Formats: sequence, structure tokens, C-alpha cells
Amino acid sequence: MADSPQAVANIGVIGLAVMGSNLARNLASREGNTVAVYNRSPERTRTLIAEHPEAGFVASEDIDDFVASLQKPRTAIIMVQAGRGTDAVIEQLTERFEPGDIIVDGGNALFTDTIRREQTVKATGVHFVGAGISGGEEGALKGPSIMPGGSAESYATLGPILSSIAAVAEGEPCVTHVGTDGAGHFVKMIHNGIEYADMQLIAEAYDLLRNVAGFTPAEIAEIFAEWNRGELESYLIEITAEVLRQVDARTGAPLVDVILDEAGSKGTGVWTVQNALDLGVPVSGIAEAVFARSLSSHRAQREAATALPGPSATVSIEDRDAFVEDVRLALYASKIVAYSQGFDAIREGATKYGWSIDEGAISKIWRGGCIIRAQFLNRIADAYAEQPGLEALLTAPYFTEAIAASQESWRRVVVLAAQAGIPAPAFSSSLSYYDGLRAERLPAALVQGQRDFFGAHTYKRVDVDGVFHTLWSGDRSEIETTPSSH
Amino acid sequence: MADSPQAVANIGVIGLAVMGSNLARNLASREGNTVAVYNRSPERTRTLIAEHPEAGFVASEDIDDFVASLQKPRTAIIMVQAGRGTDAVIEQLTERFEPGDIIVDGGNALFTDTIRREQTVKATGVHFVGAGISGGEEGALKGPSIMPGGSAESYATLGPILSSIAAVAEGEPCVTHVGTDGAGHFVKMIHNGIEYADMQLIAEAYDLLRNVAGFTPAEIAEIFAEWNRGELESYLIEITAEVLRQVDARTGAPLVDVILDEAGSKGTGVWTVQNALDLGVPVSGIAEAVFARSLSSHRAQREAATALPGPSATVSIEDRDAFVEDVRLALYASKIVAYSQGFDAIREGATKYGWSIDEGAISKIWRGGCIIRAQFLNRIADAYAEQPGLEALLTAPYFTEAIAASQESWRRVVVLAAQAGIPAPAFSSSLSYYDGLRAERLPAALVQGQRDFFGAHTYKRVDVDGVFHTLWSGDRSEIETTPSSH
Repeated sequence: MADSPQAVANIGVIGLAVMGSNLARNLASREGNTVAVYNRSPERTRTLIAEHPEAGFVASEDIDDFVASLQKPRTAIIMVQAGRGTDAVIEQLTERFEPGDIIVDGGNALFTDTIRREQTVKATGVHFVGAGISGGEEGALKGPSIMPGGSAESYATLGPILSSIAAVAEGEPCVTHVGTDGAGHFVKMIHNGIEYADMQLIAEAYDLLRNVAGFTPAEIAEIFAEWNRGELESYLIEITAEVLRQVDARTGAPLVDVILDEAGSKGTGVWTVQNALDLGVPVSGIAEAVFARSLSSHRAQREAATALPGPSATVSIEDRDAFVEDVRLALYASKIVAYSQGFDAIREGATKYGWSIDEGAISKIWRGGCIIRAQFLNRIADAYAEQPGLEALLTAPYFTEAIAASQESWRRVVVLAAQAGIPAPAFSSSLSYYDGLRAERLPAALVQGQRDFFGAHTYKRVDVDGVFHTLWSGDRSEIETTPSSH
Repeated sequence: MADSPQAVANIGVIGLAVMGSNLARNLASREGNTVAVYNRSPERTRTLIAEHPEAGFVASEDIDDFVASLQKPRTAIIMVQAGRGTDAVIEQLTERFEPGDIIVDGGNALFTDTIRREQTVKATGVHFVGAGISGGEEGALKGPSIMPGGSAESYATLGPILSSIAAVAEGEPCVTHVGTDGAGHFVKMIHNGIEYADMQLIAEAYDLLRNVAGFTPAEIAEIFAEWNRGELESYLIEITAEVLRQVDARTGAPLVDVILDEAGSKGTGVWTVQNALDLGVPVSGIAEAVFARSLSSHRAQREAATALPGPSATVSIEDRDAFVEDVRLALYASKIVAYSQGFDAIREGATKYGWSIDEGAISKIWRGGCIIRAQFLNRIADAYAEQPGLEALLTAPYFTEAIAASQESWRRVVVLAAQAGIPAPAFSSSLSYYDGLRAERLPAALVQGQRDFFGAHTYKRVDVDGVFHTLWSGDRSEIETTPSSH
């Protein structure tokens, strides 16, 4: 199949809103790329090519022309809002593409939609790749972290193109072939879930420094800036300092005091938790972060609840420097728990959906371009390199030692929050998870006993194999049975 | 439409496994009922009628005969395992039933399936009622709590029949018309979610009494029996005492020490949390309970984690009686939070799915027959009676006072758990939720500032209306804008 005479572009972008435009400009800025662009309403295309003549875009106002402008194997990245729009564009392309061509969905699709779409498109011989792209508008322009799924064959063509535009961390491009079909969007979802937990933990640290120790936002900005020079070094810590430093021009107050305290969300945190529930993975840190945002938005309930009493005694801090260090270590330990839970979800997801995912490679591509980028991810990569098949991140020697060094501080902070009446749901929940995971015996035995009592759900024993039931409403003897189906 | 000569039964039951058989026997035992029964494999039907001649069942071995044995309007309760089997039976009945007849699904269907099924069946003129039935095998036989959805018209026929077999609490049958289509199965789902939280809270109380205060299971059984005479009076507290009293015949040890500490689940807790995430309702107590069960089942991780360090100092209790009372009050306060969250989910669900649900009536029908039956539910009914449209159960005067009287104990228990290294995820999470709900300012403002920084997600201000964005990568001035879609 020869290319048509006008087939001059090695890559195309469909959908030229901010993310799509920026990604197209990023592609065009890299040596060797000629970028075809198309948008349903042509005005946007015209604006883009007028504003960015340097990009040398090959613009089409017709989908047939767009397809004709692509060299074979044709590769097009769809950057439209996730949902039905995506299906419509996929259909348009699938009708025009030939076997071996590649359709990439770079939007924020739910991974189960991606699995479905890949099934449909694959039947025509065209490759379909769901690719998570993280880093927002700036990342799209300057270098995002890219998480492509789809076939290994498609990645042979796509890999070099994506590598050329991805962020670079310690010399390595932040892109890897995550796994087949929906694996890329799945891992992007988990990334966002972890981001929720990270942000909530930072918010709790701020709240405690402010309301228990009495630091001002400007002082806390300096504390975060200091933390950013240590093991907590990360984009989110860095921008937190920037936000806390900001003074509102209108009132002269710290901006954080002027912003309404209701946190919005786009839904990927909800997806992460819903999916983890399906997988049976306790992602309590992410869940508490999602719940904290929804609680903040229940304005009427919050107003009705202001009369609820808090603790009668006030909590005072004797050594503020020591408290700052306690909060730093509590944040660090809770963060380790959140990432450990997130990587558990990746492992269980890989098993359930049949992907071969290299956790170490995932942590490496998150070191640059994306919101959770941090030095810390190198430690995760090291842990998986040292011990492939690691049961839990928490149990890697490096992290076990880090928590051992943090846990007394972590407990003190959770204690102070409870005593002072400051909500610290993610700090507390992470500690409970930690103590639950390491517990030799859990009261789950009592729960299983209750279930056997009221529903004959049976139990196993610690000493002999088999499945048992106590005749609770009979003579209370034990019988061996088969597992109950209800 | 005249009845055929053999139409002698006023109600029929399809599916004669334990739940179906027991429900059929319950129906047959009530004055005025003649019960038709049918099961796909006729052996089960024959066994049932042979074992229970007193029931006077009208048995059919053919679905046509079963339908013919029903008086009009025909009413049949399907008691088969939830899933595709249910759809098959519904189809068989719909083909044979006439407009005005009633199909009841008494299984544990997901409420969205019930909404879909009701749509389909309604188109034929037949009524379809999804009815949650709680109380297990014994409840089905002796009197369950019944939560029917479907049309008000169908309830005119169905109400008296269901009232005749339901549990009775303080003279009132534990059944009410919950709302249309899937409302009944929805409320049953929330019931089960609350049950998860209740059980986890009890398990945490036990764990603390055992591992912080050093009580034996037998001693804790007596403590629970004592608690069952106060405001915690409930079926679950009662049976917990029974389980803790039980001695294993094989080893002579307390049974709770012999049961493997892995708690199973049937999935309704997962559904509750997944749905609450869709509704934006923070059901953190239920979520922590679900996560605690899944954590308990991750055996390989738990084994890898036994080396994780706990607190270095041991926690000792000076006044054990005071500690018991603290734990009791912590349990009570956390329980109020769990119910408050559950009723929030009911209210938000009613709004989203278009149901008119009377929260007070729901709390009343849970007073008998079901697993969470308790005196406590009268207080909930009172709260909704006194203040219809109550913003949150927590803010009803009775519960606010109860928490005011409990909170210092609650805080002490959460503190001790963190210091002692005993996991108390539901106690801690409930306290964090409580402190979050009543907080005048939440650090959600910082989260929203972060979101504006990295994703231009905008924010609102506390002082003026509008939607704003700070030009973080520009001159950091503030602009008024429209809400971002990404």
C-alpha cells in the first residue's frame, strides 16, 4: 500500500482543545515529526495554525483529507473529551483506516471503555491504543508522562513518537508500554487516585500545622519549601508552598483563607476506589481523600453541623520544631501507605484483567511530567528491582525502615489530631491500615463468627483444614460443611 | 377475567432453596393464605411438600400449571439466586401473566438491575416489584424485614400479604412501600452496608477490650451482654456475646481464637460504597468496614507484613472499668456516624433516582426481622418525625447530645488505639468524619488551590460570588473566569 501523494505527516491529532493543541505543538516541536491536525469545527484549526506557524501543521477541515494526509501505517491521536464523542471519532477513523494503522485515545477514558473499544477496533485489523496522558496542559506542551496500553506491535511504531514528546526523568523518557488493551488507562486511573491521597495528606499536614501549632500560611509555606529539599521532594509539595505563599490582592489575606473550602473533582478518584472495591484491594487512603472532598461540598450539612461539640480541652504544643518534624514524618509514612495501596491495586488489576505490568517501570515513568512526580518514585523503582513480585511496597526493606523511623511521630500526630478535634482522615486511616496489615490476629475472626451465627456463612479454623459451621440455634456443636453460597 | 377452576392460591413462590422454602412456609402459616410453589427441579418441590404437609402447598412441576394455580391478580415471589437466573424466571412469568398481575423479586438484586427489569416488565402491563428481604433463613421463616419497591398500585395488593409475614416491632409490621421501581433493593443494599459498619465497630471494640485492657473472650461476652441492656441493645450485640461465650469442643479454647481471622463478604457492602461514591456521599464508616474485611483476606501480604514494627512503648490501662465505658461510648458515637452516613446515602439516592422515601418509616421497619434490628432505630424514627428534612442524623438534638456525652471517651479510645498499635479503622474514620463535618474551615481550600495551580480548575471565594483563577505561571494576578471543564 503506497502512501497517497499528500501523505506527508507521520502523526495526526484529532481534537484541538487546549490538551490536543498543546500535544500537537509538542509533537511538531520534535525533530522528524510532521503533524496533521483536525478538529470538528474548523475555526479552532484555523486559529491554531495561525497562532503557531512555526509548527508546520498539515491542517485538514475534512476527516477524509486528514486521513489522506497521514503516512502509513497511519497514526492518529484522539484528544476529545472522554465519552460518546470518543466513540464517534473512533468510528470515523476505523472506517477509513487500514489494517496496521493505529488509533490512539489520549483522553481520560475509563479503562473498561478502552477494553471494549480495543475489542471492536481490533476486529478490523486496526490497532487501538488507550494512552493515559498526565501533566495537564503544561505537560501536554512540554512533556507529559504517557501510559500507553494496546498491542506490543503498535508500540513498536508508537513508542519512538511518544518517547520524543514525553517528559524526561534522569535521562529516561516518561513513557513505557504498560500492557495490552486498557492497561494504560487503568494505570492512569490509579495515578490519579494516588494523587488524591497525596493532596489530602498534604492538606491534613497543613491543617495541623495551622490549627494545632498556630503557624501562619506564610510560615507553613516555608516549612513545605524546606520539606521539598528532603525525602518528600515532589511537585505537589513544591506547589503547595507556592499556593500558601500567595497573598490575595483584593483583601491582603493569604489566598488560602479566601478560597472557598470546597474541593471539586473530575471523577477519576471515584473510579479508582470503585474499581479497587471490585478487586478487593483496601485503598483506604485514596477513599478517605475522595470522601474528604465530597464532605467539603456538602455545604448545607456542614452548616447544620457547626453546632456539634468539639473537645473541651485545648491541645498545646510545647516544642513546635519537634511537632513540625512529627508532621513531616506522619506525612511521609502515610504517603508510603497510599502508594503501597495504589501499587496493590495495579498488581490485582493486572491479574484480573490479564496484563503483565512492570511496577518498577510504572514508578519510573511517574518521575517526570505528571502531578505526582517525586524523587520518592526512585525508591519504589529500586524496591521492585531488588525484589520482583514484592508482596507489598510497605514490606520492602527501604520502606519498612522508613516507617520504623517515622511511626512514633505518626502515632503522636494522629493522637494530637483526635485530641484537638482536627480531622485527619487520611493520616488516621493509613495508620489503621498499617496496624491492621501487621497484626498477627485480626478481629475479623469475630466478624466471621457473627456471620456464621446469623447467616450460616461458615468459617475456617486455624488448626485444621476444612469449612465449619456451629449449630448456633441447635446444640451448638460444630459440623464440617461445604462453603455456603449465600 | 375469571380465574381458571384450579386457581386456588392467592400467592406463589418460585425457587425453593432455603430462603424460598422458608418464605413459602411463612406465607402458608398465615391465616387466609394459600401458597402455590414451583421449583425448576421438581425434586426440591416434592421434598418440601412431603416435609411440610401442614402448609397445604399447591405444588406444580410445570410453570404453566403454577401460573394457572394462581388467583387473579396473580402474585408470584421469585426467590432464586440473583443474576441471570432471575431474568430467565421473570421472562417466563411475564410471558404468562396478564396486565395487573404482580411479579416480586425477593432476591438480593442490585437495585439498578431492578430498575431495568421494572422498565421492561411494566411495558407489558404486569407490575414488577423488587423487594429487599432481610433476616436470613430464620427471618424468612419467622418474620423478615421487607423492603418492597415497585408501583403504589401493586402495593395495594401486596402490602397486606407482606404485612402478614413480616416481623412485628412494637405492634407494627416491618414492611413499608419504600418507593417506586428499585427503591426497595436500594434501601436493602444500604441496610447491608450499615450492617458491615456495625459489625466492624463491634469487632474493634472487642479487639481493644482484649488487647489493650486484657479481658478474656468470656469476660468480653459478659461486657457485651451488659451493653445489650442499654442504649446499644441490638441483635448484633446480643449474638456477639453468644459467639464470644462459645468454647471450642475440640481444643477447649474460645471459639473466636480458633476461627481463622479472614472475613468473607457477599458483595452488598461493596455495592453500597460504590454507589455512595457515585452519589458523592462520604460513607467512610462502611468503606472502612469493607476494606477491613478485604485486608483480612490478603493472607500473603499479612504474612509478609508481620515484621513491620509496632509502637515501642506498651499502653497500660489504669482503670479498666472506665476503659470499658469509654469503649462503649466510642462504639455508640461511631455507630451514630455510620447510621448518619447510611441515611445520607438514602436521601441522596432518593433524589438521584426520583424516589420519595420516608426515612422514619425505613428506620421503623428495621426494628425487627433484620440483622441490624435495635432499639436505637426508634431514636432515628423520632428524629425524622420531629424534623422532616433533617440535614443529617448527627444534627438531630438527640444524637448531638448523645455524641456530646460520648466524644471525650471516643477520642480517648482512638488515641489509645493509635498508641497501642491496635487497628481501629472504623472508630478513627468516624471520628475524623465527625470532626470534618463540624469544622468551620476545611483544608479543602488548599486542595482547591493546588487544583487551580496545576490544572486551572478554578476556585470560588468566600467573600464575593464568581469563579476565579490565579495566573500561577503568569504574573499571579487573579482573573474571573467560567468554571473549567477539565
